[in-house]
Amino acid sequence: MNDDSATAIRRVAVIGTGVIGAGWAARFLANGLEVVASDPAPDARANLHASIAGACEPLERLGLAMAGWERRLSFEPDVSAAVAGAGLVQESAPEREALKRDLLERIDAAAPAGALIASSSSGLLPSRLQAGCRHPERVFIAHPFNPVYLLPLVELVGGERTAADTLARAQAFYRHLGMRPLVVRKEIEGYIADRLMEALWREALHLVNDGVATTEEVDAAVTYGAGLRWALMGTYLTFHLAGGEAGMRHMLEQFGPALKLPWTHMDAPALSEELIERIVAGCEHQAAGRDVHTLARRRDDFLVRLLSLVREYWPEQEGLTGRI
Amino acid sequence: MNDDSATAIRRVAVIGTGVIGAGWAARFLANGLEVVASDPAPDARANLHASIAGACEPLERLGLAMAGWERRLSFEPDVSAAVAGAGLVQESAPEREALKRDLLERIDAAAPAGALIASSSSGLLPSRLQAGCRHPERVFIAHPFNPVYLLPLVELVGGERTAADTLARAQAFYRHLGMRPLVVRKEIEGYIADRLMEALWREALHLVNDGVATTEEVDAAVTYGAGLRWALMGTYLTFHLAGGEAGMRHMLEQFGPALKLPWTHMDAPALSEELIERIVAGCEHQAAGRDVHTLARRRDDFLVRLLSLVREYWPEQEGLTGRI
Repeated sequence: MNDDSATAIRRVAVIGTGVIGAGWAARFLANGLEVVASDPAPDARANLHASIAGACEPLERLGLAMAGWERRLSFEPDVSAAVAGAGLVQESAPEREALKRDLLERIDAAAPAGALIASSSSGLLPSRLQAGCRHPERVFIAHPFNPVYLLPLVELVGGERTAADTLARAQAFYRHLGMRPLVVRKEIEGYIADRLMEALWREALHLVNDGVATTEEVDAAVTYGAGLRWALMGTYLTFHLAGGEAGMRHMLEQFGPALKLPWTHMDAPALSEELIERIVAGCEHQAAGRDVHTLARRRDDFLVRLLSLVREYWPEQEGLTGRI
Repeated sequence: MNDDSATAIRRVAVIGTGVIGAGWAARFLANGLEVVASDPAPDARANLHASIAGACEPLERLGLAMAGWERRLSFEPDVSAAVAGAGLVQESAPEREALKRDLLERIDAAAPAGALIASSSSGLLPSRLQAGCRHPERVFIAHPFNPVYLLPLVELVGGERTAADTLARAQAFYRHLGMRPLVVRKEIEGYIADRLMEALWREALHLVNDGVATTEEVDAAVTYGAGLRWALMGTYLTFHLAGGEAGMRHMLEQFGPALKLPWTHMDAPALSEELIERIVAGCEHQAAGRDVHTLARRRDDFLVRLLSLVREYWPEQEGLTGRI
């Protein structure tokens, strides 16, 4: 199969229909696919329907067609039967390695030849998850972000035995769903996005644990500051702009010493010449010839519009007074 | 002085007119204040005017009046003269403790009785910065975020000798400028927001240093996922929603074990019963009686509009192809 056949997939199986699995089902349906869902929970079917119904309005406002989704969704308690006709299987069971390994083996044994098998794991190693499968070459991680039907990011991670062609097909498939597939170069626990979030999260836990801030204050320190930027640009490009004319290089010179301060409970790598060069080159690539003024104007233009928008969601708009 | 007198301040001094100081000047001018600026750099005055001119359009699109700002801005190379008539002095010199201490002593010696003296430091301890001042009770940290004329967050941090009344007046003053003052409960290096950003930043450095991702990939892992949420809600409320009906408590039970994994190079605190209770109570306070469905609808409503907006800024809109 090639990329074209990956985007030609018409039927997918969603195994596990909790928050993540239901989100996948809604996204698949919104893109015209047929979905066969499976979950052992007694109320799974009703909960899945309620979740998808709740996702219809935002999806339709994004221009996607949810009309008739009920007719394209079926529920099949038996996993083997559920995956039998699928071009792609999306496993979203609880985050326990033994459980996922067992489930993936059953999926692999029953799925058609050529079907892709994705796990929604948020941190487990694909080499371990695929180890017991007969066709490990088609097994990989496709880690989405909540709400799955709206957020575009999906991390694709292959294990030692995943075929390169599998990841290429997966990229084409998820891109076809309007997503931003990020292929992770090295197989590490937590991949990329959750490692970043986990670092911030651990520091957030320390701040609350140490009595420095309440949870509300920690959240406010993000939402009214860096969070407004993070919808548009990550830390690297942000720092590149903050460095002024000299960009990231100046930033690393000026704030490099702060990395030695005990500001977090996490060690930082030494800022070797090699690392500095790699970071600077990365930022220049991202800037793509646009100078910092151009990038700053683009940032400001975005922030003005984002601010006008996000203000409507601030606490006082909901009658919550006495907040930060 | 009381809150009313703090909001009645009409003239401020901006000492140091780099990226941060110039941002402050633009924000002050946009709110009708008179600004006296001072900076020893030979081209400081011209750069300041250029920076403010660049901030006019976004500020006016936010409904602020920049007309005639040139007449309300003056430049005074001598620091003592610059602060002589100020109701508030905003120091934004380079982040070096000895330099800031010396500067704050000179400002304190020359500023009118009753004037507030704020340092824009992003991490230094106010107790140390105010130590040499004759009137340390009026000296505090007011740490803004770039771009200062747009982002609402400002962290207010008092030192051992800062008067409670000073922080109350500062809160009123910055709130009057349309900002979100976050008073930091304990004096720690890096305060709150930069500790959170520093944790993410250190992990981002590790990922690039270890060859797991390029800077572009690290940024994409934020901007297409968690970053879209962070403009609206922080990690705590995000996890509260991800926990489903049972909220944060379920989340901590399910993902607590992950804190023991070596996902980042930072240690995490033990999830004691006390910490769990504190976090759960904090989230319930933030939820303010709204159930998770209500909060999720509000989140989705926001994300739909944010996505329509932020898409216009994605790489392909600028002709950048082959990006994530």
